Amino acid sequence: MSETPKLSPPSPDTLDTLVRIVGESHAVRDPADMAPYLTEWRDRYQGKAAAVLKPGSTDEVSAILKCANETLTAIVPQGGNTGLVGGQIPFESGSEVVVSLERLTHVRDIDLASNTMTVEAGVVLQAAQQVAESAGRLFPLSLASEGSCQIGGVLATNAGGVAVLAYGNARDLTLGLEVVLADGRVLHGLKRLRKDNTGYDLKDLFIGSEGTLGIITAAVLRLFPRPVERVTCIAGVNELERATAFFARAYEAAGPMLTAFEILPRVGVEFVLKHADRTRDPLSAPYPWYLLFEFSSPRESGEPQAIAEALLQDGIEAGEIADAAIASSLSQAGELWRLRELMSEMQKHEGGSIKHDVSVPVALVPEFIARANQLVELMIPGARPVPFGHLGDGNIHYNVSQPVGMDKAVFLANWEALNAAVHEIVLDLDGSISAEHGIGRMKRDLLPHAKEPLALELMRTIKASFDPNGILNPGKLL
Amino acid sequence: MSETPKLSPPSPDTLDTLVRIVGESHAVRDPADMAPYLTEWRDRYQGKAAAVLKPGSTDEVSAILKCANETLTAIVPQGGNTGLVGGQIPFESGSEVVVSLERLTHVRDIDLASNTMTVEAGVVLQAAQQVAESAGRLFPLSLASEGSCQIGGVLATNAGGVAVLAYGNARDLTLGLEVVLADGRVLHGLKRLRKDNTGYDLKDLFIGSEGTLGIITAAVLRLFPRPVERVTCIAGVNELERATAFFARAYEAAGPMLTAFEILPRVGVEFVLKHADRTRDPLSAPYPWYLLFEFSSPRESGEPQAIAEALLQDGIEAGEIADAAIASSLSQAGELWRLRELMSEMQKHEGGSIKHDVSVPVALVPEFIARANQLVELMIPGARPVPFGHLGDGNIHYNVSQPVGMDKAVFLANWEALNAAVHEIVLDLDGSISAEHGIGRMKRDLLPHAKEPLALELMRTIKASFDPNGILNPGKLL
Repeated sequence: MSETPKLSPPSPDTLDTLVRIVGESHAVRDPADMAPYLTEWRDRYQGKAAAVLKPGSTDEVSAILKCANETLTAIVPQGGNTGLVGGQIPFESGSEVVVSLERLTHVRDIDLASNTMTVEAGVVLQAAQQVAESAGRLFPLSLASEGSCQIGGVLATNAGGVAVLAYGNARDLTLGLEVVLADGRVLHGLKRLRKDNTGYDLKDLFIGSEGTLGIITAAVLRLFPRPVERVTCIAGVNELERATAFFARAYEAAGPMLTAFEILPRVGVEFVLKHADRTRDPLSAPYPWYLLFEFSSPRESGEPQAIAEALLQDGIEAGEIADAAIASSLSQAGELWRLRELMSEMQKHEGGSIKHDVSVPVALVPEFIARANQLVELMIPGARPVPFGHLGDGNIHYNVSQPVGMDKAVFLANWEALNAAVHEIVLDLDGSISAEHGIGRMKRDLLPHAKEPLALELMRTIKASFDPNGILNPGKLL
Repeated sequence: MSETPKLSPPSPDTLDTLVRIVGESHAVRDPADMAPYLTEWRDRYQGKAAAVLKPGSTDEVSAILKCANETLTAIVPQGGNTGLVGGQIPFESGSEVVVSLERLTHVRDIDLASNTMTVEAGVVLQAAQQVAESAGRLFPLSLASEGSCQIGGVLATNAGGVAVLAYGNARDLTLGLEVVLADGRVLHGLKRLRKDNTGYDLKDLFIGSEGTLGIITAAVLRLFPRPVERVTCIAGVNELERATAFFARAYEAAGPMLTAFEILPRVGVEFVLKHADRTRDPLSAPYPWYLLFEFSSPRESGEPQAIAEALLQDGIEAGEIADAAIASSLSQAGELWRLRELMSEMQKHEGGSIKHDVSVPVALVPEFIARANQLVELMIPGARPVPFGHLGDGNIHYNVSQPVGMDKAVFLANWEALNAAVHEIVLDLDGSISAEHGIGRMKRDLLPHAKEPLALELMRTIKASFDPNGILNPGKLL
């Protein structure tokens, strides 16, 4: 496991200075009060900190970083603390200072003609979605943690989710950023422009840098028309290769009206049926794979319904899908989506689960899953792969539930070995070992294996020039 | 005007080494033969070079840069030589070496399930469009120079064009890059992935860097379903504010089916009607402004037509548009598009034209044009502003034709003063002084005025670490 680089624990004077910047009432120093900021929600990481600071303005963030940079104090930026790779949790040394952006909750601007909103880092994703909706627009980013995660964290990790297929990930939804650099200077890049070719793309360097190059304090986000008609479908598929062929057909027929395309394995559906209330088998017979997909239109036109009907018929005739259903009501659509949304959670009832967040070219998803399943059976006979996720993006959450009856700890002891072997397949297929969750602390040691040395060298060069003292989220990502 | 930094003119030995890398038959040293590579197509820039090299592979590009880096030889990468800001033309010293990517024309891969194609830098944009079309897909990037410009140049300048509204600019259409760095090392980043959160976004640093950070040799580009139904409309508008209101209405109604939204001023339409064959007034009466817009659908459904009809009626009822027509055939649609496509060219017949490629938030386009027109009348009474372009992106080509009867040279002497004054308005409205053409040589001296010092400092830091000897396109952009 990686260690915190050798920065100084903050002296009492430094801590006093930092606390004065935000004011006593917005600084947390009592260990019990700090606990929620130091624990990862699945309890995978437990850190310590010298203090948790909650600045109330960009100026305060700037003053904190200026002081931290001068005193060589390590800073861990934190949003909603929903990250899945430990990037937001300090190490165990207790010498780091957590900076929570939770008080930066101002919506600075909403511009309907330009289809943008300017929000601060601490705005919760769901609140941002609601601001857009109240204005008659859609902010399409949507993920499991949307009720807690904050825009700053979403951008720092380039979050993805279920709407990437049609709208792109956090990067694609961002036009401008305000960022505080390691030395406290503020980059004022809150442009509301679709087109701006005046030099290097600094914005996209900060997005996805996991708080290691600067602290994002505000962003200009893109808005879209609200879909007024949505049609949700589910299809049963016998062979994975048919699923990718059907995806190609659906994308060709619907283009940007295809707003989601997810895959679920039977075993995962069974876990949900078994452990969750108010669920039912989606089709009259079971199928090894299910496709859950959605068509949307900004106009009440019947077009999504017409596309869905034609496509299901064509897909069945072509032998790509074996059976299918179109949700006939919002509540039926909700039921279908619950099968997908509960998949990860319901796995918990089946014991330990070893997880992977990977992507491969869409065409290679069937090969990836087939090879990974073979490998799992070889390494841990009886273990139950539950590969599900964003088939349309080539992004599979390759989760593996323990064999029935095996001791959970014994199973979980295979975590790193299985990860390594699955990632080997991913890299062989020219995929990514972290499709949407990032690197953080969890995958930092895997990065040199997954990236070419030259890319790592360029990343280190950038890190060294943006944060020469290494105070920003040290020991994460790079 | 900026000067070439002090690099060495290549010695005869160095030149011999460079020529040997590509072979005599792919090196041009005769001044007459070099001329097409040294002249900007509108004759705004005339450069000199020690040689023009045409490598036939990434390895040869790598060997060239390794040698150039060791001998401090300045390199000017060049694609189709269609750039509008002189980025592709060497300076007058004659000590630079032009590297033309024109021989890298291989289509390395086309992957229909993943909706990607992997093409080399020298592939002409139109050829790339045709490769996609032959495979039943759309590569949506579309610009005036598509018959000559090459993918490498398109990416190096983050080209835009008429399809940005629905599909994004070159950056948004690129998933992966192969890049040769200044020292000759090759970054192998040809990933076909929609999602890959494994570290800093190096790809987007190279895109739009105008050949100053590395030479792009190949790219993975996104493909889309082919629109099978397209409906083109034109509307007459009396006031600019109504045009942006109507854009908001159209975007809300059609969402991603709104695939173009352009604005044309009456004076520009008149220039085209006067100087181009086979053109006619698009509506029965003249209007101060015209909106040219298009709806597309990947399915033969009548939906684009239905959207267009409903929208035009709503727009007329709301008083946003005064009159409108839907093209009833492909040839009528082509006629409408010719009005837009010939606008810049036909201006030539009206004498000198001073140009700007700017963007502002869409909501502020009317204010921008009003203020700029006032300014023009004040500075050059009788000069005729012809602001046209991509209203849906806030990107206006603010061209100004000379007053009737004025001496062309006398008018053009106002170029820099008018640019400065127009850019002042753009910056006041939080816009960009180069929306899609880039900085190159033309706007390099304007950059310090347009960007905040901290952004420039970060850009210089990146340049210094990626190209410490400054051999890549020196004196351009930064």
